Amino acid sequence: MLDYESYKNQLRRLADVNFAAAVLSWDQETYMPAKGADHRASQLATLAGLAHAQATDKALGELLEKLQADASLDLVQQRNVQHSLRTFKKTQKYSAEFVEALSRAISEAFQAWQTAKKENSFAHFAPHLEKLVALRREECEFVGYEKHPYDALLDEYEPGLTTAEVEKLFDEVRTELVPFVKAIAACKPNSNAVLQKNYAKDKQWEFGLYLLRLMGYDFDAGRQDISMHPFTINFGSNDVRVTTRVDENDLADMVTGSIHEGGHALYEQGLPESEYGLPSGEAVSLGIHESQSRLWENNVGRSLEYWNTVLPELKKLFPEQTAGTTAHTFFEALNVVQPSFIRVNADELTYHFHIMIRFEVEKALIEGSLAVNDVPAFWNKRYKDYLGIDVSSDAEGCLQDVHWAHGSFGYFPTYSLGSFYAAQFYAAAEKAIPSLTQQISNGDLLPLREWLREHIHQYGKQYSARELCERISGEPLQFSYFMKYARKKYAHLYAI
Amino acid sequence: MLDYESYKNQLRRLADVNFAAAVLSWDQETYMPAKGADHRASQLATLAGLAHAQATDKALGELLEKLQADASLDLVQQRNVQHSLRTFKKTQKYSAEFVEALSRAISEAFQAWQTAKKENSFAHFAPHLEKLVALRREECEFVGYEKHPYDALLDEYEPGLTTAEVEKLFDEVRTELVPFVKAIAACKPNSNAVLQKNYAKDKQWEFGLYLLRLMGYDFDAGRQDISMHPFTINFGSNDVRVTTRVDENDLADMVTGSIHEGGHALYEQGLPESEYGLPSGEAVSLGIHESQSRLWENNVGRSLEYWNTVLPELKKLFPEQTAGTTAHTFFEALNVVQPSFIRVNADELTYHFHIMIRFEVEKALIEGSLAVNDVPAFWNKRYKDYLGIDVSSDAEGCLQDVHWAHGSFGYFPTYSLGSFYAAQFYAAAEKAIPSLTQQISNGDLLPLREWLREHIHQYGKQYSARELCERISGEPLQFSYFMKYARKKYAHLYAI
Repeated sequence: MLDYESYKNQLRRLADVNFAAAVLSWDQETYMPAKGADHRASQLATLAGLAHAQATDKALGELLEKLQADASLDLVQQRNVQHSLRTFKKTQKYSAEFVEALSRAISEAFQAWQTAKKENSFAHFAPHLEKLVALRREECEFVGYEKHPYDALLDEYEPGLTTAEVEKLFDEVRTELVPFVKAIAACKPNSNAVLQKNYAKDKQWEFGLYLLRLMGYDFDAGRQDISMHPFTINFGSNDVRVTTRVDENDLADMVTGSIHEGGHALYEQGLPESEYGLPSGEAVSLGIHESQSRLWENNVGRSLEYWNTVLPELKKLFPEQTAGTTAHTFFEALNVVQPSFIRVNADELTYHFHIMIRFEVEKALIEGSLAVNDVPAFWNKRYKDYLGIDVSSDAEGCLQDVHWAHGSFGYFPTYSLGSFYAAQFYAAAEKAIPSLTQQISNGDLLPLREWLREHIHQYGKQYSARELCERISGEPLQFSYFMKYARKKYAHLYAI
Repeated sequence: MLDYESYKNQLRRLADVNFAAAVLSWDQETYMPAKGADHRASQLATLAGLAHAQATDKALGELLEKLQADASLDLVQQRNVQHSLRTFKKTQKYSAEFVEALSRAISEAFQAWQTAKKENSFAHFAPHLEKLVALRREECEFVGYEKHPYDALLDEYEPGLTTAEVEKLFDEVRTELVPFVKAIAACKPNSNAVLQKNYAKDKQWEFGLYLLRLMGYDFDAGRQDISMHPFTINFGSNDVRVTTRVDENDLADMVTGSIHEGGHALYEQGLPESEYGLPSGEAVSLGIHESQSRLWENNVGRSLEYWNTVLPELKKLFPEQTAGTTAHTFFEALNVVQPSFIRVNADELTYHFHIMIRFEVEKALIEGSLAVNDVPAFWNKRYKDYLGIDVSSDAEGCLQDVHWAHGSFGYFPTYSLGSFYAAQFYAAAEKAIPSLTQQISNGDLLPLREWLREHIHQYGKQYSARELCERISGEPLQFSYFMKYARKKYAHLYAI
């Protein structure tokens, strides 16, 4: 047990450094004065260097090898050691030269992307994208994969996920969801005008805090602040912070954002405090993380029952803007299906077309079947095919997201995975809690939070995403749950 | 030059870690949710450990020895190396056992002090104070000193300051300031009633921001937040933050606090950005730091001219509370001289009696001429002698300050030094800027800030406190400047 204690202490020290960096990042996005940026960058780089040295310390590797052969460990401990050893071995594959080259390429690409987007010039970004793709292709080779090089990139965000699995999911999106959305487009459209009125910022802020409290977010173990892009960040499960933004002329932005981040935060607050710094104290994967935010945002937050609960509070704060509205008004407004260019503003159905297109681009780039210069044409054709719209500029097209400029490939699919997992988990919750819908109508959201804690949060990385999904629903991830959810919900909303 | 670059990089990396810890401390005092405390403590401890390892790295010591013999360095570089080598050598004298024993003793003493203060029981704190005094006495021996063991402790906060110098200053306080305050006590008292009205918190906050802007505090390189105890903290000279607190029934607390912290902050914002992490980018000493806060708080902020400038703004915010008042009303109110038990609430004259008493206690404890158990009687007798008041409880007496519970001995004198330096520097500024008083009356505070930047801030540790003082005023620190300032100012306020 002494070895395990020593391992635990080393991982906690590493977590201390990584969480310290997270505090600096949180501050950077919320309160840091403008001129603090330069030194903040060097402070973060120094902490990253120290964390890297700790994570790749040979003595840690030897300790992990020893512990892997230690039969006295219990199951949770074994799992922790397996995870840590896997991470350790993977980290060893990255040479200092590669890490430095990637870091430099990302810095340069990010600068170039900002200009390219502003000037609507894909050509300005192309050489940088070329460089990043080349580096990631190199990475796939030295990290290794079984069938498709892109598997190696997916694994970084969603351990064990394969390109073939993602393809199968999007095949179903293509054959089922695409025609379903086309059918909706043929119906009489709904209005979201109620969301586009003027809603004073301070009262929106208050409403957001109310929504978080309602979900059971613990404000003694977190707080909400304002940032340009909403995010959730944690420094241990007892300090999990969310941010939001407030647009005076769009209530939906703050509302869906706060519930979404609240869902992420409940996951982090529900991880076992005693496992601080260990894999069993960490979220399973980005896809599972996103399942928690999407479940709260979409399955709960965009439901009729939820608006039965929260509308009275909104009416108190905004009597004028909400005069004559019912829960159904907001249910309709928050679920208007409308093909559009911008992913982050998309409804919960067409959203997946945006992700599917990015996946198709990434996969083709990484396998070498698509040249960087052909990305805009490839992109635009698919927006026409799946969404039926003509992309008029690359700034609103393939340059819109920051991910590629950040060097992130393999990340996007976890967004769709999140929604699909959410549908599958929510179906299981409905089975387990027969009165769930009624509870939501009554404003009693804590039983749902407890169910998620019991079946997902408390385990950390003890189970893989696949194991977790099978334990909860009896089978691995199936797109059919999402489709079933969509068909049922949108039948209430459109004459379909 | 390669060696110097290498030295510079090592010091910057060390600064990165220390400033990262400072960000975590700032967050802890301002925004951290309650439950975040435990892991925050471990995050701070881990960063402290990493910083210590960097600061005591043998290779750094060897590099410093080599650089000390490098004739190609310019004067600033030489001075940096000297400072760093001195710090390095001093740090080497501390054994891991001593550091750990001290750290443990402080934690225990702090806990005990909180209880002792609450329960008014010196006996509960005494054994811990005993332990801390013993450790500090041990420290004096292994650190070394020339004449008095207490010199070794003073040096930590005010490099080069000796017990004999402090004694000489307080001899003059005793012979000049004590009778002066007695003479004031015999005069017709002034009223501070105008400060004790109800001032709404949000408007006080606004007034505080105005005061900081007026001083030339750069909000692009800093910000103000609320904390229980006001403080200034910096993460490089481009991110220097202040905090304040707002008492609805005491305007003086926020006003003097904001100006005081603003003075500290102007010093940090004025340090040379290019010398980040190096001694030439750091404040000289605590005494010089305090001279900047006191100069702004007392010489400027409690002057009649200053209130000519700021009263119109206060009247806009609080027309009712300030009806019928003039600048003189506030000048009087902020300078009421009144012996009292609590140091932090003292006026700027009797304040030094509080410090003098703490110095006498510390010196006697460290040289072994006073037993810990005799501290309360020793303390109470001096409050009677110097302030003419009877201390009724140890909670309001020798247990009032946290410093000893934090193991800090040698810190208190820098508070008085700050005021004395402020008087001497301010006299020099008045000589250099003949229209200074008029400028302050007109709200033009920037020439004073520039003078301080030019003569103090920009140098960092390039000059010692003594050198700086001689460059500015032609002589080392003299108490007479403070006494002259006091006699002139209080002649306007009392019939003396």
